Amino acid sequence: MDAEVMDNIILLVLVTLLSVVQNVFFALKVEKECTGLNSKQHSTAFERLSCANRNCMDTYPTFLAVLWCAGICLSQAPAAFAGILYLVVRQKYFVGYMGQTCQSTPGFLFGKRILFFLSLMCIVGIINHLMLTYGSSDYKEYIQTITKAASTLLLLP
Amino acid sequence: MDAEVMDNIILLVLVTLLSVVQNVFFALKVEKECTGLNSKQHSTAFERLSCANRNCMDTYPTFLAVLWCAGICLSQAPAAFAGILYLVVRQKYFVGYMGQTCQSTPGFLFGKRILFFLSLMCIVGIINHLMLTYGSSDYKEYIQTITKAASTLLLLP
Amino acid sequence: MDAEVMDNIILLVLVTLLSVVQNVFFALKVEKECTGLNSKQHSTAFERLSCANRNCMDTYPTFLAVLWCAGICLSQAPAAFAGILYLVVRQKYFVGYMGQTCQSTPGFLFGKRILFFLSLMCIVGIINHLMLTYGSSDYKEYIQTITKAASTLLLLP
Repeated sequence: MDAEVMDNIILLVLVTLLSVVQNVFFALKVEKECTGLNSKQHSTAFERLSCANRNCMDTYPTFLAVLWCAGICLSQAPAAFAGILYLVVRQKYFVGYMGQTCQSTPGFLFGKRILFFLSLMCIVGIINHLMLTYGSSDYKEYIQTITKAASTLLLLP
Repeated sequence: MDAEVMDNIILLVLVTLLSVVQNVFFALKVEKECTGLNSKQHSTAFERLSCANRNCMDTYPTFLAVLWCAGICLSQAPAAFAGILYLVVRQKYFVGYMGQTCQSTPGFLFGKRILFFLSLMCIVGIINHLMLTYGSSDYKEYIQTITKAASTLLLLP
Repeated sequence: MDAEVMDNIILLVLVTLLSVVQNVFFALKVEKECTGLNSKQHSTAFERLSCANRNCMDTYPTFLAVLWCAGICLSQAPAAFAGILYLVVRQKYFVGYMGQTCQSTPGFLFGKRILFFLSLMCIVGIINHLMLTYGSSDYKEYIQTITKAASTLLLLP
């Protein structure tokens, strides 16, 4: 690919790479727990880890799809920032899952807010593109500035 | 990304976004069933929903990969159309799964026909590209017209 | 998409298509085992197949993400080659899983070496792009040659 395209996706590639490293970390955790499996006591720990890993993996394709769509449609910097926040939330979720058993119900959709933000970015990008095609005005500059400012709001707990 | 690239993928982005919304809908359904879990009677309903959700999620990356490959290699309109049909079939599958227990065996590959159609689009696109590179003639216009016509055949029950 | 872009991704599309065909093959195997389920003896075979299939599906999005990132960031030929090797390893894993029960622990990450190689390609590609942007020299030609040579090392057992 030429350099111009690379400029537009380099941050997304970095976040994707980070998420892959995290996936491998999760899988190694599960595998380690699995090979050290010799007593009943370990069994529940393995089941919990395996369940946490599965929940993470179930939402992974959705996350990747939304991340790349948002990054390509609108602008990559806020999308990558939201992506990194999502990875942090996922890490917290996975580690927290190790501690308690009762946490098994929620977590089908941890990081809902971040996924919602990324989807919103997609929609805004599409609307802006349609306005650019059928209308005459281009608000992309303004929208990108607003998006960058809005992405910091995700840091709120 | 510049406007020309966006023109080529906007429908695919829309379908991807729709599929993400559907995924969230499925996950919320499962979560709702899970939190209302207090009697034995609910347990089978939860298991069924969770199983339907898992079957849907298992084929989701495959669907996304084929959709985008077909859209990029050949033309996006028929690919997006087939994608929407796939989402409708998946919705039907998920809702139907709620009703009966015996439906658990099939459904590893619902929407086989649509996936097959999308794969065929990929292959035709690749062959056309190779013919364009090594030969001299370009049948892309004809192929796109035929594909658009053929995609309506997917509406047949 | 225009022909130039297609030239850069055609091998990746081919590998993706092959992996989809393999996914469908796995799913059909599981479905076949599932429909022929009438005695206790079949039950373990089904469970084993289903488990092997799930392990394969869990790492599939990770594989796709790394494959495409490596192919776009650096060069597609070694990435596609590594991708095909991964598919061969996965096939071996799936078939081997059918034979024995004790093989259930490893395999959360089969083909670790190939995923590592693809991730390394991503990182090298990103570093090269940064050097190209902020420095003046372009080592892409050398790196691509080295990568092609290195990819053959994956053939070692």
